[in-house]
Amino acid sequence: MGRWEPNARGRLEEAAMALFHERGYTGTTVEDIAARAGLTERTFFRYFADKREVLFSGSAGLEALIVEAIEAAPASVPPLAAVTAAFDALTPWFESRRGHARKRRAVIAAHAELGERELIKLSTLAAAIAASLRERGLAAPTAGLVAETGIAIFKNAFERWADDAEEQDFAVHVRAAVAELQAATAAIVPVTSSSRRSGAVARARPTPRRSRVSSRGRT
Amino acid sequence: MGRWEPNARGRLEEAAMALFHERGYTGTTVEDIAARAGLTERTFFRYFADKREVLFSGSAGLEALIVEAIEAAPASVPPLAAVTAAFDALTPWFESRRGHARKRRAVIAAHAELGERELIKLSTLAAAIAASLRERGLAAPTAGLVAETGIAIFKNAFERWADDAEEQDFAVHVRAAVAELQAATAAIVPVTSSSRRSGAVARARPTPRRSRVSSRGRT
Repeated sequence: MGRWEPNARGRLEEAAMALFHERGYTGTTVEDIAARAGLTERTFFRYFADKREVLFSGSAGLEALIVEAIEAAPASVPPLAAVTAAFDALTPWFESRRGHARKRRAVIAAHAELGERELIKLSTLAAAIAASLRERGLAAPTAGLVAETGIAIFKNAFERWADDAEEQDFAVHVRAAVAELQAATAAIVPVTSSSRRSGAVARARPTPRRSRVSSRGRT
Repeated sequence: MGRWEPNARGRLEEAAMALFHERGYTGTTVEDIAARAGLTERTFFRYFADKREVLFSGSAGLEALIVEAIEAAPASVPPLAAVTAAFDALTPWFESRRGHARKRRAVIAAHAELGERELIKLSTLAAAIAASLRERGLAAPTAGLVAETGIAIFKNAFERWADDAEEQDFAVHVRAAVAELQAATAAIVPVTSSSRRSGAVARARPTPRRSRVSSRGRT
């Protein structure tokens, strides 16, 4: 019972994902997972608190990789660039996980409770990224904005990567997401029609190059 | 009991927020809220399912305002610009609500369960924004990216607005958030050192104007 089992965690994860796929998440028990992996329930509970945690236990490792990469970026690297470079550096980690990630995504999409858990995990990741950006000297509101934008990029890159029939690597999709975001933000022309004190933007940063549209009506 | 009470919803909201502030969220009952508002519990339950919903019932109205504004934006307006203009258009709605918003934020920050509920509400808002962007012809992954980035802007603008001792209006803070995001995204230079197939970005959109840094090392 208590003996060491080679790669027990990996075997349990693989067994759980296969069973969730075959029988559904609700129809799978911890007993089923342990049996499929050729392990005991007692071994299962040494690694996971419950069957849900099989889906989410990887997120702490992912978060650690991202935070370490941000911390390792030279001080001269701008904050959002440090974040996207950290995602880029996840490429080897994601390399062998595409099949697993697709199955996991399908299970989570089918259960609202799991979707909420995923939201909370991503919010925790955003908070960790924001904390490491504050360590780099960024003010709190900016660190939050950059971290949340980073999560938007991450989610977009992840979806593209999981859906990619050509199986191009994660870094390719991070770059595509960044390029789309750059295009989207560059296309915003601040709307000033409802502004009452227009000095705030000028104080926050120099006036954008393109001229403001001040005549756009709104009802 | 069943008679019409003038502005019962507003009175209940105000009473609830005052009590959450004075006695804490946990220490306040529906009975307390109804009594403070000079109404019956039965009237309370005509408007809210429970005391938690007093904090979140406004989000449906906010979502409707945002989605309507996006739908009303001319087709020529780029997607993220339509989203930020929709936030800008919330300025009159936010105008009278700063005190309420500050108290609400403090209550939510003090209770993890309420924070999770807020996350879910913001995720629902992101999904509604993404749906209205798909209606404008945007591909699903891009709509998701723009919507989530919009939420990052919204949260940043909201925090600035709630914290603003000068009490400048919401639109001012939306513009400041947009300006920061534009600066942050413009500063990203794609990292190509770990890329294996570098054609994907070029396929996704034209090469960014600034030259790529291809020599940035990563360990």
